[in-house]
Amino acid sequence: MIYQDPKLLLFSLSSNQELAEKISASTGVHLGKVTTKQFADGEIYVDLGESVRDHDVYILQSTSYPVNDHLWELLIMIDACKRASANTVNVVIPYFGYARQDRTASPREPITAKLVANMLVKAGINRILTLDIHAVQVQGFFDIPADNLFTVPLFAEHFKNKGLLGDEVVVVAPKNSGIKRARSLAEHLGSPLAIVDYDGDDERNRENGYLIGNVSGKKTILIDDILTTGVTFSNAANVLEEAGASEVYVCASHGLFLPGSAERLNKAPIKEILVTDSVKSKNPKPDNIKYLSAAALLSDAIIRIHEGRPVSPLFNYDK
Amino acid sequence: MIYQDPKLLLFSLSSNQELAEKISASTGVHLGKVTTKQFADGEIYVDLGESVRDHDVYILQSTSYPVNDHLWELLIMIDACKRASANTVNVVIPYFGYARQDRTASPREPITAKLVANMLVKAGINRILTLDIHAVQVQGFFDIPADNLFTVPLFAEHFKNKGLLGDEVVVVAPKNSGIKRARSLAEHLGSPLAIVDYDGDDERNRENGYLIGNVSGKKTILIDDILTTGVTFSNAANVLEEAGASEVYVCASHGLFLPGSAERLNKAPIKEILVTDSVKSKNPKPDNIKYLSAAALLSDAIIRIHEGRPVSPLFNYDK
Amino acid sequence: MIYQDPKLLLFSLSSNQELAEKISASTGVHLGKVTTKQFADGEIYVDLGESVRDHDVYILQSTSYPVNDHLWELLIMIDACKRASANTVNVVIPYFGYARQDRTASPREPITAKLVANMLVKAGINRILTLDIHAVQVQGFFDIPADNLFTVPLFAEHFKNKGLLGDEVVVVAPKNSGIKRARSLAEHLGSPLAIVDYDGDDERNRENGYLIGNVSGKKTILIDDILTTGVTFSNAANVLEEAGASEVYVCASHGLFLPGSAERLNKAPIKEILVTDSVKSKNPKPDNIKYLSAAALLSDAIIRIHEGRPVSPLFNYDK
Amino acid sequence: MIYQDPKLLLFSLSSNQELAEKISASTGVHLGKVTTKQFADGEIYVDLGESVRDHDVYILQSTSYPVNDHLWELLIMIDACKRASANTVNVVIPYFGYARQDRTASPREPITAKLVANMLVKAGINRILTLDIHAVQVQGFFDIPADNLFTVPLFAEHFKNKGLLGDEVVVVAPKNSGIKRARSLAEHLGSPLAIVDYDGDDERNRENGYLIGNVSGKKTILIDDILTTGVTFSNAANVLEEAGASEVYVCASHGLFLPGSAERLNKAPIKEILVTDSVKSKNPKPDNIKYLSAAALLSDAIIRIHEGRPVSPLFNYDK
Amino acid sequence: MIYQDPKLLLFSLSSNQELAEKISASTGVHLGKVTTKQFADGEIYVDLGESVRDHDVYILQSTSYPVNDHLWELLIMIDACKRASANTVNVVIPYFGYARQDRTASPREPITAKLVANMLVKAGINRILTLDIHAVQVQGFFDIPADNLFTVPLFAEHFKNKGLLGDEVVVVAPKNSGIKRARSLAEHLGSPLAIVDYDGDDERNRENGYLIGNVSGKKTILIDDILTTGVTFSNAANVLEEAGASEVYVCASHGLFLPGSAERLNKAPIKEILVTDSVKSKNPKPDNIKYLSAAALLSDAIIRIHEGRPVSPLFNYDK
Amino acid sequence: MIYQDPKLLLFSLSSNQELAEKISASTGVHLGKVTTKQFADGEIYVDLGESVRDHDVYILQSTSYPVNDHLWELLIMIDACKRASANTVNVVIPYFGYARQDRTASPREPITAKLVANMLVKAGINRILTLDIHAVQVQGFFDIPADNLFTVPLFAEHFKNKGLLGDEVVVVAPKNSGIKRARSLAEHLGSPLAIVDYDGDDERNRENGYLIGNVSGKKTILIDDILTTGVTFSNAANVLEEAGASEVYVCASHGLFLPGSAERLNKAPIKEILVTDSVKSKNPKPDNIKYLSAAALLSDAIIRIHEGRPVSPLFNYDK
Repeated sequence: MIYQDPKLLLFSLSSNQELAEKISASTGVHLGKVTTKQFADGEIYVDLGESVRDHDVYILQSTSYPVNDHLWELLIMIDACKRASANTVNVVIPYFGYARQDRTASPREPITAKLVANMLVKAGINRILTLDIHAVQVQGFFDIPADNLFTVPLFAEHFKNKGLLGDEVVVVAPKNSGIKRARSLAEHLGSPLAIVDYDGDDERNRENGYLIGNVSGKKTILIDDILTTGVTFSNAANVLEEAGASEVYVCASHGLFLPGSAERLNKAPIKEILVTDSVKSKNPKPDNIKYLSAAALLSDAIIRIHEGRPVSPLFNYDK
Repeated sequence: MIYQDPKLLLFSLSSNQELAEKISASTGVHLGKVTTKQFADGEIYVDLGESVRDHDVYILQSTSYPVNDHLWELLIMIDACKRASANTVNVVIPYFGYARQDRTASPREPITAKLVANMLVKAGINRILTLDIHAVQVQGFFDIPADNLFTVPLFAEHFKNKGLLGDEVVVVAPKNSGIKRARSLAEHLGSPLAIVDYDGDDERNRENGYLIGNVSGKKTILIDDILTTGVTFSNAANVLEEAGASEVYVCASHGLFLPGSAERLNKAPIKEILVTDSVKSKNPKPDNIKYLSAAALLSDAIIRIHEGRPVSPLFNYDK
Repeated sequence: MIYQDPKLLLFSLSSNQELAEKISASTGVHLGKVTTKQFADGEIYVDLGESVRDHDVYILQSTSYPVNDHLWELLIMIDACKRASANTVNVVIPYFGYARQDRTASPREPITAKLVANMLVKAGINRILTLDIHAVQVQGFFDIPADNLFTVPLFAEHFKNKGLLGDEVVVVAPKNSGIKRARSLAEHLGSPLAIVDYDGDDERNRENGYLIGNVSGKKTILIDDILTTGVTFSNAANVLEEAGASEVYVCASHGLFLPGSAERLNKAPIKEILVTDSVKSKNPKPDNIKYLSAAALLSDAIIRIHEGRPVSPLFNYDK
Repeated sequence: MIYQDPKLLLFSLSSNQELAEKISASTGVHLGKVTTKQFADGEIYVDLGESVRDHDVYILQSTSYPVNDHLWELLIMIDACKRASANTVNVVIPYFGYARQDRTASPREPITAKLVANMLVKAGINRILTLDIHAVQVQGFFDIPADNLFTVPLFAEHFKNKGLLGDEVVVVAPKNSGIKRARSLAEHLGSPLAIVDYDGDDERNRENGYLIGNVSGKKTILIDDILTTGVTFSNAANVLEEAGASEVYVCASHGLFLPGSAERLNKAPIKEILVTDSVKSKNPKPDNIKYLSAAALLSDAIIRIHEGRPVSPLFNYDK
Repeated sequence: MIYQDPKLLLFSLSSNQELAEKISASTGVHLGKVTTKQFADGEIYVDLGESVRDHDVYILQSTSYPVNDHLWELLIMIDACKRASANTVNVVIPYFGYARQDRTASPREPITAKLVANMLVKAGINRILTLDIHAVQVQGFFDIPADNLFTVPLFAEHFKNKGLLGDEVVVVAPKNSGIKRARSLAEHLGSPLAIVDYDGDDERNRENGYLIGNVSGKKTILIDDILTTGVTFSNAANVLEEAGASEVYVCASHGLFLPGSAERLNKAPIKEILVTDSVKSKNPKPDNIKYLSAAALLSDAIIRIHEGRPVSPLFNYDK
Repeated sequence: MIYQDPKLLLFSLSSNQELAEKISASTGVHLGKVTTKQFADGEIYVDLGESVRDHDVYILQSTSYPVNDHLWELLIMIDACKRASANTVNVVIPYFGYARQDRTASPREPITAKLVANMLVKAGINRILTLDIHAVQVQGFFDIPADNLFTVPLFAEHFKNKGLLGDEVVVVAPKNSGIKRARSLAEHLGSPLAIVDYDGDDERNRENGYLIGNVSGKKTILIDDILTTGVTFSNAANVLEEAGASEVYVCASHGLFLPGSAERLNKAPIKEILVTDSVKSKNPKPDNIKYLSAAALLSDAIIRIHEGRPVSPLFNYDK
């Protein structure tokens, strides 16, 4: 299958070539030629291998590790496309790094997520597409169209297919800030809700978790947006086990799997760990990992955007 | 007492003259002369009664009801000050209207909070000071300095003085989105946490609330940022009563008290309703209302900002 | 008749639904679905009921009373359209409120007309279309295309049809600032000119008017752009009557008809009051009112703009 | 006298060195060293002869003939000052060229006055000071502080000193667009008003002027802002003479005296021609010319602005 | 031949009508109707004689002598096109004046080339096309697409046709700053390189030139981008003659031929002077001048840009 | 010594702490407290340890390897300072990475140096100070004050002290693009000039170098701005040796010393390698390296800028 409109050009930078190829395969959109060199002094050179003049360019890049290199590679690519007279430059950032630094929690903190947004816009993008961004308010950091796709429907379908739904299941937010996402999944499954809370609410100290709600004898699903060190999920799984949960499932939109996370998660009482393919990590993965591809969702969004058809059918966050 | 630096000029627009006078009284800062006329066609004319040339101007305006008039009055005042060569224009917006429209929750929704931020900045402000803004991410809607003061320490001190602290008290978020604020108060009081949740998570349908957590035999404090119709608090109080709470206190940073709220709250099993004086409402208030003034906190912030001293001592949100 | 290009979408906000329907009817352009709610706290919520992705959106809104609500409704609609990926956002503002505050007439005055222009542009409009804006220099407040249509040809045609033309008629500016508009009508009718002047030139004190020129025994036409309280026209009509005019006609592009104006105008020696339908006012109207519709003119301009054909044929101000 | 604050630096570019020297002499402000070279290819090189780092720079330049060279000289000087780290760059433009192109009078016209404003702001100015700018709405073309000084009080004082005031005098607008300025002078003198009007309102065709009002046996003062070819004044003077005026005086803020104007004005029945020294023209002047210096007015404004004192006492346009 | 897409409109301003006509003739693109008037006060009025609504406008203007007038004519034309709703405004500036003022070589110097770039962009251009701009870094002064075409291939073809290539020829940079351009021509011809250097490197003092390299008995080609006074080429030609060169050819992209240059060049030992037709100069030319037209190159670029085809085939600077 | 004005705050980020300490020691300016953490996912967190409210902040950061991390650390620090209400944010970037990507040398190339400039300005800097930036035109990539200090005087003083000056010395540009820098040093030393040229001018292929000029029996000094792999200098040194130079000295402003460079340079016939301490590299250095500190030069510039005294005395590039 070849997509009919040659004005649409998809490019993949170096963070997640595999996901780009899936999107290209499923849509028939040609994957444009671009090569990136990084010199010994760390400087990145982007070599745009084909004309983008008058084309609508979509650039796929997750700003995962190494985030700073990936961001500069993206900014430089945007600059090259804009100067080479692309009609529009659209970025597809399934995993948006620095998204958690979205407010000044302590005095004199930067708001790096806004800084990243400003840099992207100043470099010249016309539109951004993200996947389950950490806080939906980040959309408001942009004044250009910013579409955010949700992963909860993907997860819900998976669990329903496994028969995990209704009153026999409890959806659990593994920390107090993730309750909205848990609530959304709970609604899809028709299941009740619980929360694992911590006294100090210090993200770096997850020692004394306790459960608010009731999971005794129930199957539980922990849901969060980002899986980094695995500490939050491990601790929460232990809390659930102690509270009498019969099974613990984990799902997260973005699996960063930082060093040490696989080992840690393997030790926790978790039956399955579900993530999307938004991030391509070279680190070890836990044994019970399962990937759900977001390629079809992203493909559908790109084509709808390019053809001017509404993206709203893809937004059924609240079922 | 007269504040020593005549370059600092405080103006009050029409939303909350009383609060401005308290700030002026406690700081000794002269309250500048400005009169606002609204013509029969609704157009507002701001008459700046004294020179602002080279002054640092602080304009106090809560963008409460009627929010659109209050916003235009503020924008026009900013324009007048900037054209009249004010050195800096700083806005103090204790209650920031439209803050809840901070993301595109449904397809094709505006992000009105960002729009308001853009309008203020384009009109010419150099800085903004808010009080317990709905979502802290709204700070990132600005690229100018945006300081947000917290009210939780004020409330915590009040409850401690009443002996409401420790394990005998449970702090309760009246809906799932307010858990961070509840957690902060719980930490100040050394108390546990609970949540009133709703199946549909539809802000306009608060029928089938249920409790996550345990309040049986405990004194409870419901906390939220904005009190509008009183529906959320009334329903949550009923849920708490049914769940065996011995007493229900309510606190909210901003008491809008929309028509019907006083009657509704009077019927609910609530012992005391605590709000700050951020909003001046002409509507009836519930019988058990108590106002805590934010004037000292705002005064301290304004003087610190003007004198270039850190505002951070006022930010002890997480204690 | 259905307009052939579905990319053109016309929306009407709440100020003048009737005019939008006339435009829709005469052009066949579909009137897009949008509903506006105003909550009890005054906040406006715009619910865009259909996809605008990739469409050229035209939003009709006169910023008449209540001007601040109408302006925010418009700004929020612009924000929603832009974020929902409209291709272009064009505003049609037949009556542009705040246009008279277009200069700093006294020290420290705002220039609210420029502020409004800046707010519209910052919110994201690509183009503006107005009808007989108060001062043509306001076009220069924009750096985007700003087309202003003139009503004088409409009025001229009406008067010619009535046989009011040539030396038997005197066109009169009811105050010294409106002489350019009067001159234009005079040229269309081939009639001489006169002016009603006031000593103090204070818009709020129209007591001692006197005539410059000669109207004795002539039919006279008073012309101005905005009819608000009716004071200017009433006084001028009296001056003309005293100066021996045989008949007095009044025409104004925008009939705001503020409370009290109908009664006042009914008492003045005026034979007919002609206004366009740019403003929908709920207030009482004078008995001898006559509406000329601007719908055809606006329709023609919208279609020409959308199709890239020159709008200049509609600009024959100077005939 | 030496002005005490060395942070204030006044520079004169090449249009009106004499006026700058008067301002320097009357204020004691040092006239900074700057030399301008124009190469054989027409390119201008500005050599800033002293440090402006951290200074408040005021640049005096009337954008009179040759306007394009004068504008580029000014823009280049602004660029040099900004890059050399001036604290603020303030431009004093007594005669603001291109001000008459302030609207799109015919289809597809530029708005060159706005273009000039945009260029100045983009080049980096912080403030502008003008003298009797053609249309006061041009202030709104700027979003920076824009002070416009009026010359009518200067003229009024001159005429009062000559005993030209009250009912024996008629102030006359020489064309219909200048009536506001004439009204202002009339109020200062306590005199009535008249207008010379033209059928076609074509600025380039001033053939068939006629008088609205009555000047028979009266001394008359024609007032306009700019004297270019002298055609408007000559024709108006003839109209007044035919209408029985006993004497005709002429005053204009800016005397450009284009080639041929002196000869033309010498032939007209004009007793005295009064202009300010805003423009330094090398062309022949009419015999009965008299210059009133605006140096004191401009000096006062510059010092007030620099010291942060209100400029409003200088604005008594409306007496 | 008539170019098929009527949306492409080419306009010529007053600097080089002849080149525009060649481009129009070779492409079949209609040359749009525009007339420019310059009034006696120096102000320029641009009268756009046909609708540009929704068209892609290309404006040809070399900013040669008188550069300031040509720049304002261009800026005003841009403003007119933008306000008249052109779809895009593209400027074609074969000779970009002020390009040599591209850095602060001495303290407090302006960077006028950047200032010009900023003015063009602020006025509203979407794209710029230049021919052999003085320093390629000037492209980076723009954030819009900026294509720069090279003339070296044109010159190389000319010399090859004359048999001037290989080891019998030495390409010489007439001053040390032009070595990159000389190197490029040398590569095209397969010839070695030499440099004429000056002790003081003062552009205004070219007295003591000396040769670095060896030209004894060789045919030499001096190459530079701009020919102004002819001093650099004359001196370098003398240096080459003294160093034993058998013949001296001169080529320059832009022949300004300032007054005196023809006489000076006629006296120098130069066999042929080759320039493009980028600049239309009314001054005398040297006897041995030869023009190579850049019209075909510019035509090809304009059509490629308009049709969205790559311009890169025209960039073979380095062969 | 303690610098007297506490409003001046110097911060060092992680690239070159040693240089910052030298500057602090020589000026007495307090080195502000800031710590940077880099998390396992590569994200950088900047913790600003003291109040910057109302201070003039100077941030020292060379954007050397790893350039992308160093740039984001700098951008995030700028964001933090701006949001924390610094009065001005000034960046001191002795080595400006990506400076060589300053033009589109091949089709579709980015101009990364401009991109970096845009990012810094958008993040909020008020001023930039660099040391011998690759191309001086990069100053024009900024519209804020951009001061560039030269190292040639430092090098010249060093060589003069060693007796390396006059006709016994030849200054050599190691490639054709560096001739301006070589010319400047030659003037300081009163020595002649030569160039090492390459046929293909391909920076990545330095095989067939040859000499233009004469160095037989002379001491030679090779000068360039950046020493990266050492290939250019090694090859040029070999060319000079073959051409009969008696000694070869090398100087470069910025010593990056990429892996392999030390070994390569040790093998080349070079007597001494002189660099400044602008870059702190952890890689091996060649044996005959000598560091000249730029700390005094940078210190002087920072103090002059802060005190509003001219920086021009430090710019004596051309002696």
